[in-house]
Amino acid sequence: MGRYELEYPKDKDNSVKRYNQLASYSLRTIHGIVNSAQFVNLSFNPPNSPFPVILPMIGQMGSFDRPSADDGDPLDLYVHGYVSSRLMNLSRDGDSAGMPVCASATHVDGLVLALSSFSHNYNYRSAVLFGHATLVQDPDEKLWAMELITNSVVPDRWRHSRLPVTPAELQSTALLRVRIASASSKVRDGQAEDPRADLENEDAVGSIWTGVLPVHQTIGEPLPGPNNRVDLPGYIAEYRSSFNEEGREHSINAANKK
Amino acid sequence: MGRYELEYPKDKDNSVKRYNQLASYSLRTIHGIVNSAQFVNLSFNPPNSPFPVILPMIGQMGSFDRPSADDGDPLDLYVHGYVSSRLMNLSRDGDSAGMPVCASATHVDGLVLALSSFSHNYNYRSAVLFGHATLVQDPDEKLWAMELITNSVVPDRWRHSRLPVTPAELQSTALLRVRIASASSKVRDGQAEDPRADLENEDAVGSIWTGVLPVHQTIGEPLPGPNNRVDLPGYIAEYRSSFNEEGREHSINAANKK
Repeated sequence: MGRYELEYPKDKDNSVKRYNQLASYSLRTIHGIVNSAQFVNLSFNPPNSPFPVILPMIGQMGSFDRPSADDGDPLDLYVHGYVSSRLMNLSRDGDSAGMPVCASATHVDGLVLALSSFSHNYNYRSAVLFGHATLVQDPDEKLWAMELITNSVVPDRWRHSRLPVTPAELQSTALLRVRIASASSKVRDGQAEDPRADLENEDAVGSIWTGVLPVHQTIGEPLPGPNNRVDLPGYIAEYRSSFNEEGREHSINAANKK
Repeated sequence: MGRYELEYPKDKDNSVKRYNQLASYSLRTIHGIVNSAQFVNLSFNPPNSPFPVILPMIGQMGSFDRPSADDGDPLDLYVHGYVSSRLMNLSRDGDSAGMPVCASATHVDGLVLALSSFSHNYNYRSAVLFGHATLVQDPDEKLWAMELITNSVVPDRWRHSRLPVTPAELQSTALLRVRIASASSKVRDGQAEDPRADLENEDAVGSIWTGVLPVHQTIGEPLPGPNNRVDLPGYIAEYRSSFNEEGREHSINAANKK
């Protein structure tokens, strides 16, 4: 309360060039976009290829050194993905600073339908982070990051899953820690905006619907697995209803923002 | 009907290394994932930076030379984004082959909750494409791609928007065409899968809920803009209900797949 909000310093990598009135460098905004997204995209350059690679991975930002840190504090990004063997090898073999990566997370909040095709837009929240990825080696940090990531899928799931983690599971889980070098975010909200010439076009205004179609992720009715013998627990039911309600409200509030 | 399905040839860039039983190289599958996603991520290497950059952009695959082509045919990726001035400059200044990029599109279809944290998973569809990006210069191709992309936001929106596109709008719209070099996709569906040791753990099976929380995008109640004077047209109402119904069904079918 009352403390200033930390920002990532602007540099040549993270400075938003276009529509920069939509940009924010606030740690809280950027980390909040990542930590409320269901996955992050990680991009890196494999050796001997002209192309960067993008892999979608489950990730979450946190601080192992200071677990009580919140979204407004300096955090590392921890990622875990099933498609990441190349990435894991690269970050193990690379120099000690780690492998340069870009991570991004994006929420679509609405389809903004204007009079002209040209003025169509999305309401969205998008974060882009740059940093260096290394494999997490310390078993304590690994276990902590597994808990962080599991609880990002469904809050409180970790302590409701089969514990303890076995040595074999710990051994065969590969996690990357990305130390953030710089980052930025862009947020577009509000209603459709049309230039004056279009608004004075009576034919257009009299015939074309303009507005926002709000968009959000929904969790449907839970589908128990074939081996399940347990009634749906409260922590899952509550997460589902708060996730759906908050998503719905956010998409409406984004459209109504002035 | 009856024709074979085209596939991207496997090479060192696009071969899926891990969980490759989930991989598909089918053009129809890959292009379908891209064309049903609300945005694509584009990654490229800016000059003088160690980091690749990821930009979320609105994109769609199609064939300007053969507009009747469908998702199973060879297609180019067209992208349009408000944050893309760096990208546009690079693809204009680069050699004539174009700038090497990676594009990806991902759908989350469900949260898969298993007994152990280790066996948790997502149901998802993910496509990764590699190719060379160049600026679209031909005004006819540009106009065609604007129509393709506008109709990907809401089907049939183009002919219901203010037309014709003005010369100034055409001039200030920048679009990239990515010629695809190779691509792959991964699709995970089905229920939670637990190893035998966990299934024989009576404490775990008797106390932990396992199953899938299906996830899909929802379009909420349309929010007319301040200058709107028109009732919601049928093509928007119908798109909203089919988008929501198909998304819901897809997430349930994915969980129930054997």
